[in-house]
Amino acid sequence: MKRFMDDKDFLLSTPTGEKLFHEYAEGMPIVDYHCHISPQEIFENKRFETITEVWLGGDHYKWRLMRASGVDERYITGDAPAREKFQKWAETLSRCVGNPVYEWSHLELKRFFGYDGVLNAQTAQEVWDLANAKLAEDDFTCRELIRRSNVRLICTTDDPADSFEWHKKIAADPTFDVQVVPAMRPDAALRIERAGEYAAYLKRLGEAAGIEIKTFDDLKRAISIRYDVAHELGCRASDHALDYVMYEPATPEEIEAIFEKGLAGEQVSEHEMLQYKTAFMLFVAGEYERLGWAMQLHFGCIRDNNATMFAKLGPDTGYDSISNYAPADQLAAFLNAVNETSGLPKTILYSLNPYDTYMIDTVMQCFQQAPVAGKLQNGSAWWFNDHETGMRQQLTALANEGVLGTFVGMLTDSRSFLSYPRHEYFRRVLCGLIGEWVEAGKYPADFETLGSIVRDISYNNAVRYFGFDLPLEA
Amino acid sequence: MKRFMDDKDFLLSTPTGEKLFHEYAEGMPIVDYHCHISPQEIFENKRFETITEVWLGGDHYKWRLMRASGVDERYITGDAPAREKFQKWAETLSRCVGNPVYEWSHLELKRFFGYDGVLNAQTAQEVWDLANAKLAEDDFTCRELIRRSNVRLICTTDDPADSFEWHKKIAADPTFDVQVVPAMRPDAALRIERAGEYAAYLKRLGEAAGIEIKTFDDLKRAISIRYDVAHELGCRASDHALDYVMYEPATPEEIEAIFEKGLAGEQVSEHEMLQYKTAFMLFVAGEYERLGWAMQLHFGCIRDNNATMFAKLGPDTGYDSISNYAPADQLAAFLNAVNETSGLPKTILYSLNPYDTYMIDTVMQCFQQAPVAGKLQNGSAWWFNDHETGMRQQLTALANEGVLGTFVGMLTDSRSFLSYPRHEYFRRVLCGLIGEWVEAGKYPADFETLGSIVRDISYNNAVRYFGFDLPLEA
Amino acid sequence: MKRFMDDKDFLLSTPTGEKLFHEYAEGMPIVDYHCHISPQEIFENKRFETITEVWLGGDHYKWRLMRASGVDERYITGDAPAREKFQKWAETLSRCVGNPVYEWSHLELKRFFGYDGVLNAQTAQEVWDLANAKLAEDDFTCRELIRRSNVRLICTTDDPADSFEWHKKIAADPTFDVQVVPAMRPDAALRIERAGEYAAYLKRLGEAAGIEIKTFDDLKRAISIRYDVAHELGCRASDHALDYVMYEPATPEEIEAIFEKGLAGEQVSEHEMLQYKTAFMLFVAGEYERLGWAMQLHFGCIRDNNATMFAKLGPDTGYDSISNYAPADQLAAFLNAVNETSGLPKTILYSLNPYDTYMIDTVMQCFQQAPVAGKLQNGSAWWFNDHETGMRQQLTALANEGVLGTFVGMLTDSRSFLSYPRHEYFRRVLCGLIGEWVEAGKYPADFETLGSIVRDISYNNAVRYFGFDLPLEA
Repeated sequence: MKRFMDDKDFLLSTPTGEKLFHEYAEGMPIVDYHCHISPQEIFENKRFETITEVWLGGDHYKWRLMRASGVDERYITGDAPAREKFQKWAETLSRCVGNPVYEWSHLELKRFFGYDGVLNAQTAQEVWDLANAKLAEDDFTCRELIRRSNVRLICTTDDPADSFEWHKKIAADPTFDVQVVPAMRPDAALRIERAGEYAAYLKRLGEAAGIEIKTFDDLKRAISIRYDVAHELGCRASDHALDYVMYEPATPEEIEAIFEKGLAGEQVSEHEMLQYKTAFMLFVAGEYERLGWAMQLHFGCIRDNNATMFAKLGPDTGYDSISNYAPADQLAAFLNAVNETSGLPKTILYSLNPYDTYMIDTVMQCFQQAPVAGKLQNGSAWWFNDHETGMRQQLTALANEGVLGTFVGMLTDSRSFLSYPRHEYFRRVLCGLIGEWVEAGKYPADFETLGSIVRDISYNNAVRYFGFDLPLEA
Repeated sequence: MKRFMDDKDFLLSTPTGEKLFHEYAEGMPIVDYHCHISPQEIFENKRFETITEVWLGGDHYKWRLMRASGVDERYITGDAPAREKFQKWAETLSRCVGNPVYEWSHLELKRFFGYDGVLNAQTAQEVWDLANAKLAEDDFTCRELIRRSNVRLICTTDDPADSFEWHKKIAADPTFDVQVVPAMRPDAALRIERAGEYAAYLKRLGEAAGIEIKTFDDLKRAISIRYDVAHELGCRASDHALDYVMYEPATPEEIEAIFEKGLAGEQVSEHEMLQYKTAFMLFVAGEYERLGWAMQLHFGCIRDNNATMFAKLGPDTGYDSISNYAPADQLAAFLNAVNETSGLPKTILYSLNPYDTYMIDTVMQCFQQAPVAGKLQNGSAWWFNDHETGMRQQLTALANEGVLGTFVGMLTDSRSFLSYPRHEYFRRVLCGLIGEWVEAGKYPADFETLGSIVRDISYNNAVRYFGFDLPLEA
Repeated sequence: MKRFMDDKDFLLSTPTGEKLFHEYAEGMPIVDYHCHISPQEIFENKRFETITEVWLGGDHYKWRLMRASGVDERYITGDAPAREKFQKWAETLSRCVGNPVYEWSHLELKRFFGYDGVLNAQTAQEVWDLANAKLAEDDFTCRELIRRSNVRLICTTDDPADSFEWHKKIAADPTFDVQVVPAMRPDAALRIERAGEYAAYLKRLGEAAGIEIKTFDDLKRAISIRYDVAHELGCRASDHALDYVMYEPATPEEIEAIFEKGLAGEQVSEHEMLQYKTAFMLFVAGEYERLGWAMQLHFGCIRDNNATMFAKLGPDTGYDSISNYAPADQLAAFLNAVNETSGLPKTILYSLNPYDTYMIDTVMQCFQQAPVAGKLQNGSAWWFNDHETGMRQQLTALANEGVLGTFVGMLTDSRSFLSYPRHEYFRRVLCGLIGEWVEAGKYPADFETLGSIVRDISYNNAVRYFGFDLPLEA
């Protein structure tokens, strides 16, 4: 039996896997090219009072588990004291055998707090005391957590109407040498179905861009203006939350008419919404190609399923699910249409439905094109798939259908400053899997090549792919 | 190499798994909270003449395998002599390497008949002689088979129009202390698309409830009346067979108009059928919440695919299949609508499509709510998924997306009195899987916690969840 | 650690698996019942100049990998020198850890060229020299490659309008005793949506059949005539490329009207196309039943996704993908309709979407019928699933849902004369998997039965199923 989450062999089932991880992957720096942390908190170098704040403050993964355990909402998002919330969490965690949060939590306790024990109802007090004491220390600020994690670059997630104030301030601060660059997520510009909200957003975007948005062409111009600003600040990636990758072409005149409805705060039809979104995505894809950015498409998600709780808590509070509608033909048609018009930018596809993996892997291979290695990517196992099972499935499918050696690898997608050990988790899974293939005689034990593949996937491929201003690591 | 289906390690790959099974799970009693056995046969304490009767009499799993083997229907549902049918079955079974029925059959031979050999063409006579001799003994009646299997409670599957005569008689019989309680499956009240049949059923239901059903409101009243009767008899669960969980809302007036068509024996449209079924399900969900019952939804099935054979043999004869249409958005919308109106009852979701698992696991987590631990459940791997592969996939997904420790565990869903070893099979798979996780260092070897999780999933969770009048087992 | 792709244990994880492969499966002859090689090249006994020609000439699996690696199209389908193309391939291959083409390539180097090393950038020259020298030898002609692979029969893929000239010539040539028989793939007759092309094809088909095709009935008559000719030449199988198995019934009058549009070169609607295809498939299914042929349905594919590259390179150049639309209800309804009218022929279903597997396995079991063992089959893991992962999934699902012992096994589906080692690959996976089940105690170590199952799946089942004129191998 292996020891519980032992450094030596956690997620590593063979000596080859251990060697690949410890000698090649483990020491690589981190490029966290998609996450949801706050640049303001980084600039202000935020501190945390308690482990409850840093762990349970906004982590809807943990909230879901507590709800599934029958814990009252008072101890989750309610007004219960921090210590009591932590106790409920510790009790819940023990029942979560097989859940990735069990492993993440203990990895975070080990890596950041030096705690090698097991968190449960009995040890909760001990962990509470230890963690809170550490959090009061100077190397537990946001910046120190990032620095200690060997992070070299972070892409945050930003609206084109944002001022980028905090990115500028961080860049101007000589005391912090981790790059924090924006990534564009113009979801609000896409959501024409939210009558009212949409028009208000257009006003805000227009102000940011210094133009008045009266037509779809104006909107496009505003986006371009803001994208250029973001580019200057180091932005090399975008990100879109789509129900699915739709393709409902329309004429420019139709799009203008639909846009006018949206601007007037009128409700558009389902079909009009799809036409509008298609037109918008075709446009921004062209922008990404123009700017050399990567386009990230996140889809296969149904958000805010619980109306009662949405009314109480708002979005991103643990009420989202996998969707099983993502038609391959529309995905392929959209990529083809972009390719036929503006040319296809580098594109990373993420579906929340694990059973889209093989479909995505084979659709994207139809658009691979020199000179970018792995121009289209099937993104790392995302959200509800971010566990050993999901990663192994994503990596195995990718390897079976394409060239694993070109994969851009892991991102945290996280709202937490403690989530960087997920890169370690990913690298262990990656090395564990390759180690098994090698020891099963499916690939030679050529560590020079394998080590280079593992290092590339851990770090170098992302640097090359996005074109970040960072040194490669041999 | 392990010995063939050895008690010690069958389905158990690690010492930890063996310990969990033998020291914690194996001795737990059984609550079989969903099955299709006949309460009349239990009351009358039915005996079986031959192994052919008890094994091949109504078991469409075996019939399918024989048909797939090229066996003539005469030896399956036809008039061939029992001994010849058994021979054909033995010959078929040998070719079924990797099929769960191979393992179930041998488990039943071991546990009930004490036969440790292998059933094949050569040993068929020996097994025939042995099994038939045993079946003539007194501890091979229905009741003894149940008692010997350590079953404490059985939920049968019953129509609200039923008299519950046999449940009452069993309850009144002091010589049999296993609880046999009804579970409500009002499928006939749902099937408005079966013009004629539907109206006839309403008449029967009205008579049972003592009212005349002329409106949809009458139907609802009749259901409530019969549900209250069932509740008195210990009913704590319902069950619905749905093509998929649909959500097509309509006004009360629209529903009454559709209902009128159905009552008049007219054909309703597809859309009307979906509206009616949505309204009916919204209503009964409210009833389950009122009564504190669990709502079981079985979906993802296409029934009676072969018209020729349906005409000859009727339903449940081996001609059903997996459906791949179960839209996540409608499932989520239905659960939300129930939650918004009556409040959501405890709900167990079962899809026949194994690739719905992650979707279900993530949709249901959006509606978990205190105080019930695991208020929504993704039911145990069902029917065509009831094998080691399917169970491992269901358990792994559940563990990855939620709190495995709250799972209500196994049910047989069976028409056979010999199927209780499937609970053993399930517990072995469960302990095997957890044992692997522990030995891989993913969870500590804390047998107190693990043992309690395993016992809960084997028995206690079901007792707590349904609220059965049974003692918990520490 | 196993040695890299060692004869002894490649893809075999247990002694039982090794014994099954080496003592039972390995020596079985090959029936390659579905492939795309050219009967003309066989008759003319084609020779190859370079490894680039034989490996990269038409192999879109390799082209996709090169594109995904960022290799310029010039080195793929362009005019770069053969040696340079080979170098780019060797460099690409090293990055393809976990890809089946990595293993296939090395298996081909071992089996045909006796090269036991590893192909990479450094060894490319050595392999180039060795392979090209061998290709100049007499036992590297098409016919010798086939003969050395222990192939007994090949079904090519042929249009009913073909002359079958090469099949006749091969049959008449006493120096080559491998049977090369046609298999009918009337895709062009199905594609009424390709206005113009369709009418032109009907003319060609009419000429081949010696009738003028003016009505749908004429078309049916022409097909029958050509099928009878093919039958005389040993044809026992057909094959259809469908987007999905559709069922849109129509009256004969409606079909004639749709046909008339097609004949006139007019565009039919989507709905009309589906009605036409349904009618066509119902007809040919009846023909297959009449002739005792097996009907192969390949679906779940979206072809030619990249319009730019299609314009440059045409079809079958690496731009196809998995589709995720294949409704179970239409598949079941189609099979039922055939069963109700002409009677269902032997049928093999192949979906490119690996997540259709369990659905197919359960739908097909609804139509199994004596006397054919395994009358309906879920075909071997196809194209993008043709790897260890895909094969294990297909075999495991088949075993779980049916009678593995009746499976007709492997086919290459290949355009290459070097692809026969994929039968070895398949047999290793099969024996590896069964070996694991046996050593896990799920099936007895009864080598007589297991050996017979393995031999049947490797060869005998296909001979029996299709009714080929070949001896069975005990």
